[in-house]
Amino acid sequence: MTPPRISADRLWKRLMALGQDGALPNGGVNRQALSVEEIRAWRRVIAWGTEAGLVPSTDPAGNLFLTFKGSAPQLAPVVAGSHIDSQPTGGLFDGAFGTLAALEAVTAIVEANLAPERSIVVVGWMNEEGSRFAPGMMGSELFAGLRSLDDVLAVRDADGVSVGEALTRVHEAFPDMEHRPLGFPIHSYIEPHIEQADLLEKSGAVIGIVTGIQGKKTYEVTIAGREAHAGTEPMERRQDAVQAFARVALMMQQAMAVDDKVKFTIGRLMVEPNAPSVVPAKVTFRIDLRHPSNALLDQLDTQLEAILIKEATPCSFNIRRLVDAPSNDFDSGLMNAIRSSAKRHGFHHLDLLSAAGHDARQLAPLTRSAMIFIPCQGGISHHPEEWAQPDHVAAGAAVLLDLLLQETGLSSHQGDA
Amino acid sequence: MTPPRISADRLWKRLMALGQDGALPNGGVNRQALSVEEIRAWRRVIAWGTEAGLVPSTDPAGNLFLTFKGSAPQLAPVVAGSHIDSQPTGGLFDGAFGTLAALEAVTAIVEANLAPERSIVVVGWMNEEGSRFAPGMMGSELFAGLRSLDDVLAVRDADGVSVGEALTRVHEAFPDMEHRPLGFPIHSYIEPHIEQADLLEKSGAVIGIVTGIQGKKTYEVTIAGREAHAGTEPMERRQDAVQAFARVALMMQQAMAVDDKVKFTIGRLMVEPNAPSVVPAKVTFRIDLRHPSNALLDQLDTQLEAILIKEATPCSFNIRRLVDAPSNDFDSGLMNAIRSSAKRHGFHHLDLLSAAGHDARQLAPLTRSAMIFIPCQGGISHHPEEWAQPDHVAAGAAVLLDLLLQETGLSSHQGDA
Repeated sequence: MTPPRISADRLWKRLMALGQDGALPNGGVNRQALSVEEIRAWRRVIAWGTEAGLVPSTDPAGNLFLTFKGSAPQLAPVVAGSHIDSQPTGGLFDGAFGTLAALEAVTAIVEANLAPERSIVVVGWMNEEGSRFAPGMMGSELFAGLRSLDDVLAVRDADGVSVGEALTRVHEAFPDMEHRPLGFPIHSYIEPHIEQADLLEKSGAVIGIVTGIQGKKTYEVTIAGREAHAGTEPMERRQDAVQAFARVALMMQQAMAVDDKVKFTIGRLMVEPNAPSVVPAKVTFRIDLRHPSNALLDQLDTQLEAILIKEATPCSFNIRRLVDAPSNDFDSGLMNAIRSSAKRHGFHHLDLLSAAGHDARQLAPLTRSAMIFIPCQGGISHHPEEWAQPDHVAAGAAVLLDLLLQETGLSSHQGDA
Repeated sequence: MTPPRISADRLWKRLMALGQDGALPNGGVNRQALSVEEIRAWRRVIAWGTEAGLVPSTDPAGNLFLTFKGSAPQLAPVVAGSHIDSQPTGGLFDGAFGTLAALEAVTAIVEANLAPERSIVVVGWMNEEGSRFAPGMMGSELFAGLRSLDDVLAVRDADGVSVGEALTRVHEAFPDMEHRPLGFPIHSYIEPHIEQADLLEKSGAVIGIVTGIQGKKTYEVTIAGREAHAGTEPMERRQDAVQAFARVALMMQQAMAVDDKVKFTIGRLMVEPNAPSVVPAKVTFRIDLRHPSNALLDQLDTQLEAILIKEATPCSFNIRRLVDAPSNDFDSGLMNAIRSSAKRHGFHHLDLLSAAGHDARQLAPLTRSAMIFIPCQGGISHHPEEWAQPDHVAAGAAVLLDLLLQETGLSSHQGDA
């Protein structure tokens, strides 16, 4: 019996083929959650899975599972994968790499005629990106019981289509697919992903051993002033929402600079009535705040509100907390296994913290979890120019295969810690 | 022969009737330049004018003229009026009052069987407001030769319709109307208007003798940074256009506070890509700067650019000067005539500077010009709640009538200075 080996060529070709679903003229991908493009991608991934003997299923959250049934299916399965939705101007690798690497690793096990006791499930989580339906991570958050299904199904996109309506269309496109209840016990979870930063590239490493994901808080803040004529309203009588915003934004930026790991961003901003000759009455903006330390994030949260109290005057304000995702650490045993595998293959590797959020954050509290990063060129992602080298893609899948073999007991490779 | 008298009742009823063209459910008016609503308003105003024997005409700029022909039509006419377009959420009086007061004053002269040598022209200038097609004052600026006709006709609204296309539709709606060339000599110009501030109301005055219009400069500024991932891009490497904007806006606001007559407004602001988790790459905003002193405005202009040079770093910027309308003084003889008329009628009056821009600014360099203000409730305008009292509306028209009689030589009332 030959040992299982991934086919680098097949994996690469499938990655390129999946990029046809939602392909943009500039080489990018627009395959947003629950879209017709994602339905086409499901069809493609399911066909590849069933060809290898995997059984497709879905759940009320619209997650896609492909199960390689073990000989003891009552045991909690090993789950690996990522997501196949993209940003509206996304690339070929974010999400797709993780799901297809998992499919490739399982296919390699099948082709080697190995029969694990424990089932292996390839997953594509629903709406990781959150661009069409905000916020993202819907599938993994629902799976982990972090959000209510009713609330998520009611979220609407810019055209007024709800998650529930869009999901019904996806499920209707696959009438014969097995439906399973939301959530199930998992033996361990491994998610391969491109790094979306350039630490690996800069250090010449091929495999990133992800130690954890930084915490993230997001906010929607509204500053409300009073509309007035730009030519007549005396300055001292104004309640100018844009000027209040400028003070608030500047003070926040200064206050957040406590260390070089803080990431503070005001990326979205709407002004009302947004007319050149009208003193602006309202500014609505989003804050994205990230740091590895939950304690520091909580402390900065207090400061944000204190700055609003002090600087929004004479305008009033409202602060709405949207996302409060604590930082997490990944399983040290799995991290050791990734390290051992990289060493065995001769891949340079690096321990690093993920600055971006991933579905693995939701899985980490439920089960032993880990992430395998591969480099992406220039650290660019969420962009048509997002690119990973074929040999790095293959390396990530090869390491994942080692982990699946270990987690299903098919091999005895052990972490070296 | 009875002396001419305006009909306060007819003028008020016509103001209310004109408010039906573009009426909003909340009592406001949306009658933007060259719209179907303005075509309906033209039809109404032309019908009232022709009923009194006035002859309608238009010009390549889409201005509307109603001429009461004098016995010596070769003499330069006296022109009075304002505009009949409105803001998208405007009121019943801004513009409409001035045009209908002029129509009422001329109608009173006709009804008194007076036959002036000099013609009197009632005017409705095209697109004073500039909300559909920006910037405003198109009709009076074209009349005064301040802009090129080709440039103005090429301006497009948010739906992609050009001024030229919209104007063709207006002219097609009135196939029999006389077309005259752009611009003609004017003996004097008088524009009645609501104050759009509350100085008259606060001082208990009914007639405002407008001494001039404050100068105005407007700008479009672009701050360009670099798009990046909000979760991964280190703060020190960012070129965050929103943060650069916050610094710039705050420094500008502080630098402009040289005296209490400065009006500085950033009313319009667009962020790109305007996504919550993306470091913003571009901010485009408008500055509206006004002051009675042209010298100070020029000085502040230099400061605005200096602040951009200093504070936009590490982003780059571009500053585009849109409007540079110097302040102007109105004719002292006409101001005296307004004062005398107000005294004769027993109307409390007040000299004041107009903080808002008006078509009269463009006429002032061409001919002796003046503006007659009446109070508007709470100083509110560009708003459905804009309101003027019926007796103030009648007072403004009565004073205008006195000026028309004097300017056409039909009466010998003289200024008292």
